[in-house]
Amino acid sequence: MTRTRLEPLDRGVKRKPLRRIRLAVQYDGTAYNGWQAQPSGTTIQRTLEKSIQKITGDTVSLIGAGRTDAGVHAVEQVASFDSATKLDTTVLKRALNAVLPEDVRVFAVEDVQTDFHPRYSALRKRYVYLIANMEIGSVPVFLKRYVWQISVPLRAAEMKRAADYLCGRHDFSSFRGTGCGARSPVREVYAIDVQGFDEIHFLCARFSGTFLKIAIEADAFLRHMVRNIVGTLVEVGRGKLTPQDIRGILEARDRKCAGPTAPAKGLFLDRVIYPL
Amino acid sequence: MTRTRLEPLDRGVKRKPLRRIRLAVQYDGTAYNGWQAQPSGTTIQRTLEKSIQKITGDTVSLIGAGRTDAGVHAVEQVASFDSATKLDTTVLKRALNAVLPEDVRVFAVEDVQTDFHPRYSALRKRYVYLIANMEIGSVPVFLKRYVWQISVPLRAAEMKRAADYLCGRHDFSSFRGTGCGARSPVREVYAIDVQGFDEIHFLCARFSGTFLKIAIEADAFLRHMVRNIVGTLVEVGRGKLTPQDIRGILEARDRKCAGPTAPAKGLFLDRVIYPL
Repeated sequence: MTRTRLEPLDRGVKRKPLRRIRLAVQYDGTAYNGWQAQPSGTTIQRTLEKSIQKITGDTVSLIGAGRTDAGVHAVEQVASFDSATKLDTTVLKRALNAVLPEDVRVFAVEDVQTDFHPRYSALRKRYVYLIANMEIGSVPVFLKRYVWQISVPLRAAEMKRAADYLCGRHDFSSFRGTGCGARSPVREVYAIDVQGFDEIHFLCARFSGTFLKIAIEADAFLRHMVRNIVGTLVEVGRGKLTPQDIRGILEARDRKCAGPTAPAKGLFLDRVIYPL
Repeated sequence: MTRTRLEPLDRGVKRKPLRRIRLAVQYDGTAYNGWQAQPSGTTIQRTLEKSIQKITGDTVSLIGAGRTDAGVHAVEQVASFDSATKLDTTVLKRALNAVLPEDVRVFAVEDVQTDFHPRYSALRKRYVYLIANMEIGSVPVFLKRYVWQISVPLRAAEMKRAADYLCGRHDFSSFRGTGCGARSPVREVYAIDVQGFDEIHFLCARFSGTFLKIAIEADAFLRHMVRNIVGTLVEVGRGKLTPQDIRGILEARDRKCAGPTAPAKGLFLDRVIYPL
Protein backbone atom coordinates (compact mmCIF):
# COMPACT_ATOMS: atom_id res chain seq x y z
CA MET A 1 0.00 0.00 0.00
CA THR A 2 1.38 3.38 -1.02
CA ARG A 3 0.86 6.29 1.29
CA THR A 4 0.34 9.58 -0.48
CA ARG A 5 2.06 12.47 1.18
CA LEU A 6 0.23 15.77 0.71
CA GLU A 7 2.49 18.74 0.26
CA PRO A 8 1.27 22.30 0.75
CA LEU A 9 0.95 24.05 -2.62
CA ASP A 10 2.90 27.11 -1.54
CA ARG A 11 5.62 25.75 0.69
CA GLY A 12 6.91 29.09 1.88
CA VAL A 13 3.64 30.41 3.22
CA LYS A 14 2.37 28.79 6.37
CA ARG A 15 -1.39 28.53 6.22
CA LYS A 16 -3.00 29.21 9.55
CA PRO A 17 -6.53 27.94 9.94
CA LEU A 18 -8.76 30.74 11.23
CA ARG A 19 -11.12 30.30 14.15
CA ARG A 20 -14.14 32.53 14.69
CA ILE A 21 -14.25 33.55 18.32
CA ARG A 22 -17.28 35.02 20.04
CA LEU A 23 -16.97 37.34 23.03
CA ALA A 24 -19.58 38.43 25.57
CA VAL A 25 -18.50 41.91 26.65
CA GLN A 26 -19.60 44.28 29.41
CA TYR A 27 -18.64 47.92 29.64
CA ASP A 28 -19.19 51.23 31.34
CA GLY A 29 -19.38 53.54 28.34
CA THR A 30 -18.81 56.80 30.25
CA ALA A 31 -15.21 57.29 29.12
CA TYR A 32 -15.68 56.03 25.54
CA ASN A 33 -16.61 57.49 22.21
CA GLY A 34 -19.06 54.65 21.64
CA TRP A 35 -18.58 51.13 20.31
CA GLN A 36 -17.59 51.73 16.70
CA ALA A 37 -13.99 52.63 15.78
CA GLN A 38 -13.75 56.35 14.92
CA PRO A 39 -11.04 58.50 13.42
CA SER A 40 -10.70 60.18 16.83
CA GLY A 41 -11.45 59.24 20.41
CA THR A 42 -11.16 55.93 22.22
CA THR A 43 -13.85 53.40 21.35
CA ILE A 44 -14.81 50.09 22.93
CA GLN A 45 -14.19 48.26 19.64
CA ARG A 46 -10.66 49.65 19.26
CA THR A 47 -9.88 49.01 22.94
CA LEU A 48 -10.86 45.37 22.55
CA GLU A 49 -9.04 44.99 19.22
CA LYS A 50 -5.83 46.31 20.79
CA SER A 51 -6.13 43.90 23.71
CA ILE A 52 -6.78 40.97 21.35
CA GLN A 53 -3.73 41.94 19.31
CA LYS A 54 -1.61 42.16 22.46
CA ILE A 55 -2.62 38.63 23.49
CA THR A 56 -2.82 36.79 20.15
CA GLY A 57 -0.43 38.81 18.01
CA ASP A 58 -3.20 39.02 15.37
CA THR A 59 -4.50 42.26 13.93
CA VAL A 60 -8.23 41.62 14.04
CA SER A 61 -11.46 43.30 13.03
CA LEU A 62 -14.02 42.97 15.76
CA ILE A 63 -17.70 43.00 14.79
CA GLY A 64 -20.25 43.95 17.45
CA ALA A 65 -23.95 43.12 17.72
CA GLY A 66 -24.92 46.70 18.56
CA ARG A 67 -23.12 49.94 17.75
CA THR A 68 -23.73 51.68 21.07
CA ASP A 69 -23.39 55.49 21.12
CA ALA A 70 -20.82 57.45 23.12
CA GLY A 71 -21.66 57.13 26.82
CA VAL A 72 -23.98 54.12 26.43
CA HIS A 73 -23.19 51.08 28.60
CA ALA A 74 -23.51 47.37 27.98
CA VAL A 75 -24.50 44.69 30.44
CA GLU A 76 -23.98 42.23 27.56
CA GLN A 77 -22.65 43.11 24.15
CA VAL A 78 -21.70 40.31 21.77
CA ALA A 79 -18.78 40.54 19.35
CA SER A 80 -16.71 38.22 17.18
CA PHE A 81 -13.38 38.13 15.40
CA ASP A 82 -11.34 35.68 13.34
CA SER A 83 -7.95 34.62 14.58
CA ALA A 84 -5.31 31.97 14.06
CA THR A 85 -4.50 31.89 17.77
CA LYS A 86 -4.10 28.48 19.37
CA LEU A 87 -4.94 29.82 22.81
CA ASP A 88 -7.63 27.97 24.69
CA THR A 89 -10.81 30.05 25.28
CA THR A 90 -10.32 29.97 29.08
CA VAL A 91 -6.75 31.23 28.76
CA LEU A 92 -7.84 33.84 26.22
CA LYS A 93 -10.55 35.14 28.54
CA ARG A 94 -8.19 35.46 31.50
CA ALA A 95 -5.45 37.06 29.39
CA LEU A 96 -7.83 39.60 27.82
CA ASN A 97 -9.19 40.68 31.19
CA ALA A 98 -5.65 41.09 32.49
CA VAL A 99 -4.86 43.69 29.81
CA LEU A 100 -8.27 45.36 29.38
CA PRO A 101 -8.98 48.63 31.21
CA GLU A 102 -11.18 48.48 34.32
CA ASP A 103 -14.33 49.65 32.53
CA VAL A 104 -14.37 46.88 29.91
CA ARG A 105 -14.45 43.15 30.59
CA VAL A 106 -14.95 39.98 28.63
CA PHE A 107 -17.10 37.55 30.56
CA ALA A 108 -17.41 34.75 28.02
CA VAL A 109 -15.20 33.51 25.16
CA GLU A 110 -16.18 30.67 22.87
CA ASP A 111 -15.46 29.18 19.46
CA VAL A 112 -18.36 29.52 17.06
CA GLN A 113 -19.18 28.39 13.51
CA THR A 114 -17.57 30.59 10.87
CA ASP A 115 -21.01 31.64 9.61
CA PHE A 116 -21.84 33.28 12.96
CA HIS A 117 -22.29 37.04 12.68
CA PRO A 118 -22.99 39.03 15.88
CA ARG A 119 -25.49 41.33 14.16
CA TYR A 120 -27.02 39.25 11.36
CA SER A 121 -27.31 36.09 13.45
CA ALA A 122 -29.10 37.92 16.29
CA LEU A 123 -32.83 37.29 16.62
CA ARG A 124 -33.43 40.30 18.83
CA LYS A 125 -31.82 42.77 21.18
CA ARG A 126 -32.88 44.24 24.48
CA TYR A 127 -32.01 47.72 25.71
CA VAL A 128 -32.74 49.02 29.20
CA TYR A 129 -33.05 52.69 30.08
CA LEU A 130 -32.97 54.04 33.65
CA ILE A 131 -34.54 57.26 34.91
CA ALA A 132 -34.07 58.69 38.41
CA ASN A 133 -37.27 60.66 38.85
CA MET A 134 -36.14 62.90 41.69
CA GLU A 135 -34.35 66.13 42.45
CA ILE A 136 -30.69 66.28 41.41
CA GLY A 137 -29.56 66.32 45.06
CA SER A 138 -31.41 63.07 45.74
CA VAL A 139 -29.65 60.88 43.17
CA PRO A 140 -27.01 58.66 44.84
CA VAL A 141 -23.60 59.65 43.41
CA PHE A 142 -22.80 56.00 42.70
CA LEU A 143 -25.66 55.86 40.20
CA LYS A 144 -25.21 59.17 38.38
CA ARG A 145 -23.27 57.68 35.49
CA TYR A 146 -26.16 55.33 34.82
CA VAL A 147 -29.38 57.32 35.04
CA TRP A 148 -31.20 60.24 33.46
CA GLN A 149 -32.23 62.49 36.32
CA ILE A 150 -35.61 64.17 35.84
CA SER A 151 -37.07 66.38 38.60
CA VAL A 152 -40.64 66.76 37.24
CA PRO A 153 -42.79 63.84 38.46
CA LEU A 154 -43.48 61.47 35.57
CA ARG A 155 -46.77 59.62 35.15
CA ALA A 156 -45.58 56.03 34.66
CA ALA A 157 -49.08 54.69 33.89
CA GLU A 158 -49.42 57.09 30.95
CA MET A 159 -45.96 56.15 29.71
CA LYS A 160 -46.95 52.46 29.78
CA ARG A 161 -50.05 53.17 27.72
CA ALA A 162 -47.97 55.20 25.25
CA ALA A 163 -45.44 52.36 24.97
CA ASP A 164 -48.17 49.93 23.92
CA TYR A 165 -48.74 51.94 20.71
CA LEU A 166 -45.11 51.37 19.74
CA CYS A 167 -45.20 47.59 20.06
CA GLY A 168 -45.50 45.58 16.86
CA ARG A 169 -44.15 46.00 13.33
CA HIS A 170 -43.97 49.69 12.38
CA ASP A 171 -42.14 52.20 10.28
CA PHE A 172 -40.05 53.93 12.96
CA SER A 173 -38.90 56.89 10.81
CA SER A 174 -40.18 59.30 13.49
CA PHE A 175 -37.71 57.73 15.95
CA ARG A 176 -34.78 57.42 13.55
CA GLY A 177 -31.67 59.50 14.23
CA THR A 178 -29.94 61.44 11.46
CA GLY A 179 -27.11 59.54 9.81
CA CYS A 180 -28.84 56.17 10.27
CA GLY A 181 -27.51 53.78 7.62
CA ALA A 182 -30.32 51.19 7.76
CA ARG A 183 -31.98 50.32 4.45
CA SER A 184 -35.46 50.03 5.91
CA PRO A 185 -37.05 52.04 8.74
CA VAL A 186 -39.36 49.11 9.58
CA ARG A 187 -38.65 47.29 12.83
CA GLU A 188 -40.59 44.91 15.01
CA VAL A 189 -40.79 45.89 18.66
CA TYR A 190 -41.67 42.80 20.70
CA ALA A 191 -42.14 44.48 24.05
CA ILE A 192 -41.67 47.74 25.92
CA ASP A 193 -41.82 47.35 29.65
CA VAL A 194 -42.12 50.48 31.83
CA GLN A 195 -41.60 49.68 35.49
CA GLY A 196 -41.48 51.96 38.51
CA PHE A 197 -39.38 51.26 41.61
CA ASP A 198 -39.51 52.88 45.05
CA GLU A 199 -35.95 51.95 45.85
CA ILE A 200 -32.87 50.95 44.00
CA HIS A 201 -30.08 48.60 45.02
CA PHE A 202 -26.47 49.50 44.79
CA LEU A 203 -24.00 46.92 46.01
CA CYS A 204 -25.18 46.15 49.54
CA ALA A 205 -27.07 49.43 50.01
CA ARG A 206 -30.61 50.47 49.14
CA PHE A 207 -31.56 53.97 48.14
CA SER A 208 -35.16 55.06 48.22
CA GLY A 209 -36.65 57.31 45.58
CA THR A 210 -38.59 56.92 42.36
CA PHE A 211 -36.83 55.09 39.60
CA LEU A 212 -38.22 54.13 36.21
CA LYS A 213 -36.84 51.29 34.12
CA ILE A 214 -37.80 51.10 30.46
CA ALA A 215 -36.88 47.84 28.71
CA ILE A 216 -37.29 47.61 24.94
CA GLU A 217 -36.92 44.43 22.92
CA ALA A 218 -36.94 44.48 19.11
CA ASP A 219 -35.62 42.52 16.14
CA ALA A 220 -33.17 45.36 15.49
CA PHE A 221 -32.92 49.08 16.16
CA LEU A 222 -32.48 52.19 14.03
CA ARG A 223 -29.91 54.78 15.05
CA HIS A 224 -30.91 56.52 18.33
CA MET A 225 -34.23 54.64 18.23
CA VAL A 226 -34.23 53.68 21.92
CA ARG A 227 -33.16 57.14 23.07
CA ASN A 228 -35.78 58.79 20.83
CA ILE A 229 -38.50 56.45 22.10
CA VAL A 230 -37.49 57.15 25.73
CA GLY A 231 -37.38 60.91 25.08
CA THR A 232 -40.90 60.71 23.63
CA LEU A 233 -42.25 58.54 26.47
CA VAL A 234 -40.89 61.11 28.92
CA GLU A 235 -42.90 63.81 27.10
CA VAL A 236 -45.95 61.65 27.76
CA GLY A 237 -44.90 61.20 31.40
CA ARG A 238 -44.65 64.97 31.78
CA GLY A 239 -48.10 65.42 30.27
CA LYS A 240 -46.87 67.24 27.17
CA LEU A 241 -48.11 64.44 24.94
CA THR A 242 -50.97 61.97 25.44
CA PRO A 243 -50.49 58.23 24.95
CA GLN A 244 -52.79 58.47 21.92
CA ASP A 245 -50.46 61.03 20.31
CA ILE A 246 -47.98 58.22 19.72
CA ARG A 247 -50.13 56.78 16.94
CA GLY A 248 -50.00 60.05 15.00
CA ILE A 249 -46.26 60.40 15.62
CA LEU A 250 -45.63 56.92 14.19
CA GLU A 251 -47.84 57.63 11.18
CA ALA A 252 -46.13 60.97 10.47
CA ARG A 253 -42.81 59.18 9.74
CA ASP A 254 -41.13 62.44 10.60
CA ARG A 255 -38.43 62.73 13.28
CA LYS A 256 -39.61 66.27 14.10
CA CYS A 257 -42.95 64.93 15.39
CA ALA A 258 -41.45 62.78 18.18
CA GLY A 259 -39.84 63.92 21.44
CA PRO A 260 -36.19 64.79 22.06
CA THR A 261 -33.36 62.25 22.24
CA ALA A 262 -32.82 60.98 25.80
CA PRO A 263 -29.24 61.29 27.14
CA ALA A 264 -26.87 58.40 26.44
CA LYS A 265 -25.82 57.71 30.01
CA GLY A 266 -29.11 56.12 31.15
CA LEU A 267 -28.94 53.52 28.37
CA PHE A 268 -27.67 49.92 28.58
CA LEU A 269 -27.45 47.29 25.86
CA ASP A 270 -28.84 44.55 28.09
CA ARG A 271 -28.89 41.38 25.99
CA VAL A 272 -28.51 40.06 22.47
CA ILE A 273 -30.60 36.98 21.76
CA TYR A 274 -29.54 34.30 19.22
CA PRO A 275 -31.26 31.12 18.03
CA LEU A 276 -30.63 28.22 20.40
CA MET B 1 -42.76 108.02 76.01
CA THR B 2 -39.28 108.21 74.59
CA ARG B 3 -38.15 105.53 72.23
CA THR B 4 -34.51 104.67 72.54
CA ARG B 5 -32.86 104.11 69.24
CA LEU B 6 -29.98 101.64 69.44
CA GLU B 7 -27.10 102.48 67.20
CA PRO B 8 -24.45 99.96 66.26
CA LEU B 9 -21.18 100.70 68.07
CA ASP B 10 -19.09 100.57 64.93
CA ARG B 11 -21.30 102.09 62.28
CA GLY B 12 -19.10 101.34 59.33
CA VAL B 13 -18.78 97.59 59.93
CA LYS B 14 -21.87 95.52 59.38
CA ARG B 15 -21.92 92.66 61.88
CA LYS B 16 -23.22 89.50 60.37
CA PRO B 17 -24.39 86.85 62.82
CA LEU B 18 -22.83 83.48 61.94
CA ARG B 19 -24.83 80.29 61.57
CA ARG B 20 -23.31 76.85 61.91
CA ILE B 21 -24.55 74.69 59.05
CA ARG B 22 -24.32 70.92 58.96
CA LEU B 23 -24.13 68.99 55.69
CA ALA B 24 -24.70 65.31 54.97
CA VAL B 25 -22.47 64.53 52.00
CA GLN B 26 -22.11 61.56 49.66
CA TYR B 27 -19.24 61.04 47.25
CA ASP B 28 -17.53 58.71 44.86
CA GLY B 29 -13.90 59.21 45.90
CA THR B 30 -12.35 57.70 42.75
CA ALA B 31 -11.28 61.02 41.22
CA TYR B 32 -10.27 62.75 44.46
CA ASN B 33 -7.16 63.06 46.55
CA GLY B 34 -9.17 62.26 49.68
CA TRP B 35 -11.27 64.44 51.96
CA GLN B 36 -8.72 66.74 53.51
CA ALA B 37 -7.47 69.83 51.65
CA GLN B 38 -3.94 69.21 50.34
CA PRO B 39 -1.32 71.44 48.77
CA SER B 40 -1.89 69.57 45.49
CA GLY B 41 -4.72 67.57 43.95
CA THR B 42 -8.48 68.03 44.15
CA THR B 43 -10.03 67.07 47.46
CA ILE B 44 -13.64 66.64 48.53
CA GLN B 45 -13.26 69.30 51.24
CA ARG B 46 -11.92 71.90 48.80
CA THR B 47 -14.55 71.01 46.18
CA LEU B 48 -17.32 71.59 48.73
CA GLU B 49 -15.71 74.78 50.08
CA LYS B 50 -15.52 76.22 46.57
CA SER B 51 -19.19 75.40 45.91
CA ILE B 52 -20.23 76.95 49.25
CA GLN B 53 -18.28 80.08 48.40
CA LYS B 54 -19.90 80.25 44.98
CA ILE B 55 -23.38 80.10 46.52
CA THR B 56 -22.98 82.12 49.73
CA GLY B 57 -20.10 84.43 48.83
CA ASP B 58 -18.41 83.35 52.10
CA THR B 59 -14.93 81.89 52.29
CA VAL B 60 -15.51 78.99 54.66
CA SER B 61 -13.54 76.27 56.42
CA LEU B 62 -15.36 73.01 56.22
CA ILE B 63 -14.78 70.42 58.96
CA GLY B 64 -15.51 66.78 58.19
CA ALA B 65 -16.34 63.91 60.53
CA GLY B 66 -13.90 61.52 58.84
CA ARG B 67 -10.78 62.31 56.83
CA THR B 68 -11.24 59.69 54.14
CA ASP B 69 -8.16 58.68 52.11
CA ALA B 70 -7.71 59.20 48.38
CA GLY B 71 -10.10 56.88 46.53
CA VAL B 72 -12.33 56.15 49.54
CA HIS B 73 -16.07 56.76 49.06
CA ALA B 74 -18.74 58.02 51.42
CA VAL B 75 -22.37 56.93 51.60
CA GLU B 76 -22.73 59.51 54.38
CA GLN B 77 -20.04 61.92 55.49
CA VAL B 78 -20.98 64.75 57.85
CA ALA B 79 -19.40 68.21 57.68
CA SER B 80 -20.06 71.68 59.04
CA PHE B 81 -19.13 75.30 58.37
CA ASP B 82 -19.96 78.75 59.72
CA SER B 83 -21.56 81.26 57.43
CA ALA B 84 -23.45 84.55 57.51
CA THR B 85 -25.62 83.48 54.59
CA LYS B 86 -29.34 84.17 54.88
CA LEU B 87 -30.22 81.43 52.44
CA ASP B 88 -32.80 78.94 53.62
CA THR B 89 -31.42 75.37 54.06
CA THR B 90 -33.67 74.00 51.28
CA VAL B 91 -32.46 76.66 48.85
CA LEU B 92 -28.86 76.10 49.95
CA LYS B 93 -29.12 72.35 49.35
CA ARG B 94 -30.57 72.80 45.85
CA ALA B 95 -28.04 75.51 44.93
CA LEU B 96 -25.07 73.47 46.17
CA ASN B 97 -26.12 70.41 44.18
CA ALA B 98 -26.53 72.56 41.09
CA VAL B 99 -22.86 73.61 41.19
CA LEU B 100 -21.23 70.48 42.67
CA PRO B 101 -19.61 67.97 40.31
CA GLU B 102 -21.50 64.75 39.57
CA ASP B 103 -19.52 62.64 42.02
CA VAL B 104 -20.28 64.74 45.11
CA ARG B 105 -23.73 65.58 46.44
CA VAL B 106 -25.20 67.14 49.54
CA PHE B 107 -28.30 65.27 50.63
CA ALA B 108 -29.13 67.14 53.83
CA VAL B 109 -28.51 70.69 55.04
CA GLU B 110 -29.53 71.92 58.49
CA ASP B 111 -28.79 74.60 61.05
CA VAL B 112 -27.14 73.25 64.18
CA GLN B 113 -26.01 74.63 67.56
CA THR B 114 -22.70 76.46 67.36
CA ASP B 115 -21.11 73.89 69.68
CA PHE B 116 -21.68 71.11 67.14
CA HIS B 117 -18.43 69.62 65.83
CA PRO B 118 -18.64 66.89 63.15
CA ARG B 119 -15.76 64.91 64.66
CA TYR B 120 -15.86 65.65 68.39
CA SER B 121 -19.65 65.46 68.65
CA ALA B 122 -19.75 62.06 66.91
CA LEU B 123 -20.45 59.04 69.12
CA ARG B 124 -19.26 56.53 66.57
CA LYS B 125 -18.57 55.92 62.90
CA ARG B 126 -19.25 53.02 60.60
CA TYR B 127 -17.12 52.01 57.62
CA VAL B 128 -18.05 49.34 55.11
CA TYR B 129 -15.56 47.46 52.96
CA LEU B 130 -16.50 45.41 49.89
CA ILE B 131 -14.59 42.49 48.44
CA ALA B 132 -15.43 40.74 45.15
CA ASN B 133 -14.07 37.25 45.77
CA MET B 134 -13.88 36.12 42.17
CA GLU B 135 -11.68 36.16 39.10
CA ILE B 136 -10.97 39.59 37.62
CA GLY B 137 -13.03 38.77 34.51
CA SER B 138 -16.08 38.01 36.65
CA VAL B 139 -16.40 41.38 38.40
CA PRO B 140 -19.18 43.49 36.82
CA VAL B 141 -17.56 46.62 35.35
CA PHE B 142 -20.15 48.82 37.09
CA LEU B 143 -18.81 47.71 40.48
CA LYS B 144 -15.06 47.85 39.86
CA ARG B 145 -14.61 51.29 41.38
CA TYR B 146 -16.15 50.02 44.61
CA VAL B 147 -14.63 46.62 45.36
CA TRP B 148 -11.33 44.93 46.08
CA GLN B 149 -11.12 41.99 43.70
CA ILE B 150 -9.46 38.88 45.17
CA SER B 151 -9.25 35.67 43.12
CA VAL B 152 -8.13 33.27 45.90
CA PRO B 153 -11.23 31.89 47.70
CA LEU B 154 -11.49 33.46 51.15
CA ARG B 155 -12.77 31.57 54.20
CA ALA B 156 -15.41 33.95 55.53
CA ALA B 157 -16.07 31.90 58.68
CA GLU B 158 -12.41 32.21 59.71
CA MET B 159 -12.48 35.95 59.00
CA LYS B 160 -15.54 36.30 61.27
CA ARG B 161 -13.75 34.49 64.08
CA ALA B 162 -10.69 36.71 63.60
CA ALA B 163 -12.85 39.84 63.65
CA ASP B 164 -14.23 38.89 67.08
CA TYR B 165 -10.74 39.29 68.60
CA LEU B 166 -10.67 42.91 67.45
CA CYS B 167 -13.96 43.92 69.06
CA GLY B 168 -13.77 45.85 72.32
CA ARG B 169 -11.41 48.47 73.70
CA HIS B 170 -7.85 47.87 72.49
CA ASP B 171 -4.57 49.54 71.66
CA PHE B 172 -4.71 49.43 67.86
CA SER B 173 -1.05 50.41 67.25
CA SER B 174 -0.61 47.31 65.05
CA PHE B 175 -3.30 48.67 62.74
CA ARG B 176 -2.21 52.30 62.80
CA GLY B 177 -0.89 53.83 59.58
CA THR B 178 2.27 55.95 59.52
CA GLY B 179 1.65 59.67 59.89
CA CYS B 180 -1.36 59.13 62.18
CA GLY B 181 -1.80 62.24 64.30
CA ALA B 182 -4.00 60.73 67.04
CA ARG B 183 -2.81 61.22 70.63
CA SER B 184 -3.88 57.78 71.80
CA PRO B 185 -3.85 54.48 69.85
CA VAL B 186 -6.71 53.15 71.99
CA ARG B 187 -10.06 52.79 70.28
CA GLU B 188 -13.26 50.96 71.04
CA VAL B 189 -14.56 48.76 68.25
CA TYR B 190 -18.26 48.07 68.87
CA ALA B 191 -18.78 45.55 66.10
CA ILE B 192 -17.19 43.99 63.04
CA ASP B 193 -19.65 42.23 60.80
CA VAL B 194 -18.34 39.95 58.05
CA GLN B 195 -21.10 38.91 55.68
CA GLY B 196 -20.97 36.84 52.51
CA PHE B 197 -23.33 37.32 49.58
CA ASP B 198 -23.99 35.06 46.59
CA GLU B 199 -25.22 37.89 44.44
CA ILE B 200 -24.98 41.62 44.36
CA HIS B 201 -27.50 44.18 43.20
CA PHE B 202 -26.65 46.94 40.86
CA LEU B 203 -29.47 49.24 39.84
CA CYS B 204 -32.11 46.87 38.49
CA ALA B 205 -29.70 44.01 37.73
CA ARG B 206 -28.34 41.19 39.85
CA PHE B 207 -24.90 39.73 39.42
CA SER B 208 -24.04 36.39 40.93
CA GLY B 209 -20.67 35.68 42.49
CA THR B 210 -19.11 35.74 45.93
CA PHE B 211 -19.06 39.10 47.64
CA LEU B 212 -17.88 39.89 51.16
CA LYS B 213 -19.01 42.92 53.11
CA ILE B 214 -17.06 43.91 56.20
CA ALA B 215 -18.73 46.57 58.37
CA ILE B 216 -16.74 48.09 61.24
CA GLU B 217 -18.21 50.39 63.89
CA ALA B 218 -15.99 52.16 66.43
CA ASP B 219 -15.89 55.29 68.58
CA ALA B 220 -13.19 56.67 66.27
CA PHE B 221 -10.54 55.33 63.91
CA LEU B 222 -6.77 55.68 63.61
CA ARG B 223 -5.25 56.45 60.24
CA HIS B 224 -5.69 53.51 57.81
CA MET B 225 -7.17 51.46 60.66
CA VAL B 226 -10.07 50.02 58.64
CA ARG B 227 -7.89 49.24 55.63
CA ASN B 228 -5.26 47.60 57.86
CA ILE B 229 -7.89 45.53 59.67
CA VAL B 230 -9.40 44.43 56.33
CA GLY B 231 -5.95 43.61 54.93
CA THR B 232 -5.28 41.46 58.01
CA LEU B 233 -8.67 39.74 57.92
CA VAL B 234 -7.99 38.84 54.27
CA GLU B 235 -4.72 37.17 55.35
CA VAL B 236 -6.86 35.06 57.70
CA GLY B 237 -9.33 34.37 54.87
CA ARG B 238 -6.45 33.14 52.69
CA GLY B 239 -5.22 30.88 55.48
CA LYS B 240 -1.94 32.75 55.99
CA LEU B 241 -2.95 33.71 59.52
CA THR B 242 -5.24 31.94 61.98
CA PRO B 243 -8.02 33.79 63.80
CA GLN B 244 -6.08 33.26 67.03
CA ASP B 245 -3.07 35.08 65.56
CA ILE B 246 -5.06 38.32 65.86
CA ARG B 247 -4.64 38.33 69.64
CA GLY B 248 -0.85 38.30 69.33
CA ILE B 249 -0.93 40.95 66.59
CA LEU B 250 -2.94 43.28 68.84
CA GLU B 251 -0.64 42.65 71.79
CA ALA B 252 2.50 43.29 69.72
CA ARG B 253 1.41 46.94 69.14
CA ASP B 254 3.60 46.85 66.05
CA ARG B 255 2.31 47.69 62.57
CA LYS B 256 4.73 45.18 61.02
CA CYS B 257 2.91 42.29 62.72
CA ALA B 258 -0.47 42.90 61.00
CA GLY B 259 -1.39 42.30 57.35
CA PRO B 260 -1.04 44.71 54.43
CA THR B 261 -3.23 47.78 53.89
CA ALA B 262 -6.31 46.95 51.80
CA PRO B 263 -6.83 49.16 48.70
CA ALA B 264 -8.81 52.38 49.18
CA LYS B 265 -11.43 51.77 46.49
CA GLY B 266 -13.40 49.08 48.38
CA LEU B 267 -13.92 51.37 51.37
CA PHE B 268 -16.98 53.49 52.20
CA LEU B 269 -17.58 55.81 55.13
CA ASP B 270 -21.09 54.52 55.73
CA ARG B 271 -22.49 56.51 58.65
CA VAL B 272 -21.56 58.92 61.42
CA ILE B 273 -23.66 58.56 64.57
CA TYR B 274 -24.40 61.50 66.90
CA PRO B 275 -26.31 61.71 70.20
CA LEU B 276 -30.05 62.06 69.60
